[in-house]
Amino acid sequence: MNTLWRTHFRGREPLVLGVLVSGSGTNLQAIIDEIDRGSLNAKIAVVVSNIASAKALDRARTAGIPTVVLDHKAFADRAAFDTKLVETLLAHHVTCVVFAGFMRIVTSVVLRAFPNRVVNIHPSLLPAFPGVNAQAQAVAYGARLSGCTVHFVDEGTDTGPIIAQRGVPVYDDDDEASLRERILRKEHALLPTVLQWIADGRIEIDTSGDGTRARVRLKPYS
Amino acid sequence: MNTLWRTHFRGREPLVLGVLVSGSGTNLQAIIDEIDRGSLNAKIAVVVSNIASAKALDRARTAGIPTVVLDHKAFADRAAFDTKLVETLLAHHVTCVVFAGFMRIVTSVVLRAFPNRVVNIHPSLLPAFPGVNAQAQAVAYGARLSGCTVHFVDEGTDTGPIIAQRGVPVYDDDDEASLRERILRKEHALLPTVLQWIADGRIEIDTSGDGTRARVRLKPYS
Repeated sequence: MNTLWRTHFRGREPLVLGVLVSGSGTNLQAIIDEIDRGSLNAKIAVVVSNIASAKALDRARTAGIPTVVLDHKAFADRAAFDTKLVETLLAHHVTCVVFAGFMRIVTSVVLRAFPNRVVNIHPSLLPAFPGVNAQAQAVAYGARLSGCTVHFVDEGTDTGPIIAQRGVPVYDDDDEASLRERILRKEHALLPTVLQWIADGRIEIDTSGDGTRARVRLKPYS
Repeated sequence: MNTLWRTHFRGREPLVLGVLVSGSGTNLQAIIDEIDRGSLNAKIAVVVSNIASAKALDRARTAGIPTVVLDHKAFADRAAFDTKLVETLLAHHVTCVVFAGFMRIVTSVVLRAFPNRVVNIHPSLLPAFPGVNAQAQAVAYGARLSGCTVHFVDEGTDTGPIIAQRGVPVYDDDDEASLRERILRKEHALLPTVLQWIADGRIEIDTSGDGTRARVRLKPYS
């Protein structure tokens, strides 16, 4: 197994990630751990948080990763914030942007700078339960199967092309917290997996369908 | 295992089902087969179709089950159709109504006659992709995980309290037909399972939550 991925990685440049966070950063930690383990051919060039007190920043510092705080309240509007965000990411030579619990909607300023290179992880099986508090929405609705979705970001709220989804059961006695924990375990496995697909150049976006919506395809290993 | 369910069924009345169909009736067949097999403690008192040519009617006749055709186009409005439907079901002593590919929305006429006793199976993970052509909707959206949902019917379109859900992967080369087939295999397992839960008196509807939406709970075997 070890030999296999070493062969596979040989000669490939690692994916250069900019990871955007707002909270505790467990998905950031999952990416750091998979890189350390040698199972994700990437490096995290910078971690950007819009919240100065985010625990994710401590995780980044512990791992020796540069951190930047961009307090969104210090900017006149979304476009000004996004312009500074793009500047920061480009200054660190980022080629793929990861929203790992980043609680901001971005504008076309970011999406144009990183076309099809902005990835989000969302704690529901989209298109069910988009937006904030997805786990609480699923519990309140009485869903029996929920999960997580990794998708490319577009200008909507959790509407972009879906790359991968994983399901978890919802039990009778679940509340928002217990469901969040169960989904998080899937998130921590899925997000690094998808990033490795991107590192391998396996993800392609297919717009040849009905013309109204792009679909993601996963190419075989080459 | 055999001994176990025999013990369990002993002294319990079988659930008396009225199964409503519009199409090929593979879910009806799954119910018939599980009853024959002794793993579902139910009997089908009547199969009602709104389509005279539905293949499901042949399946019912082959199994010796009474059939009734109610052509919705012969009724003045939905309420008139539903009144006749309720009459038919009550005449056959039905206590639980199953929509197994029944392509009609019913009114409160049916729901009041069978409160919390009308069950539907839908080929998506609701609340995603309600309404017609759920499988095509999932493929067009680019979902990577879809499945089926068994829920109690309310007056909305596929909005009632969810009893159970099962997931299936969606592959890059899926079209509506291939996804339908994969979901159907899950439907055929799930629908009889849920009906047995109802036969066992294990399903309860909990309205003690946020007060806005009923949630279904599955009680332990007693």
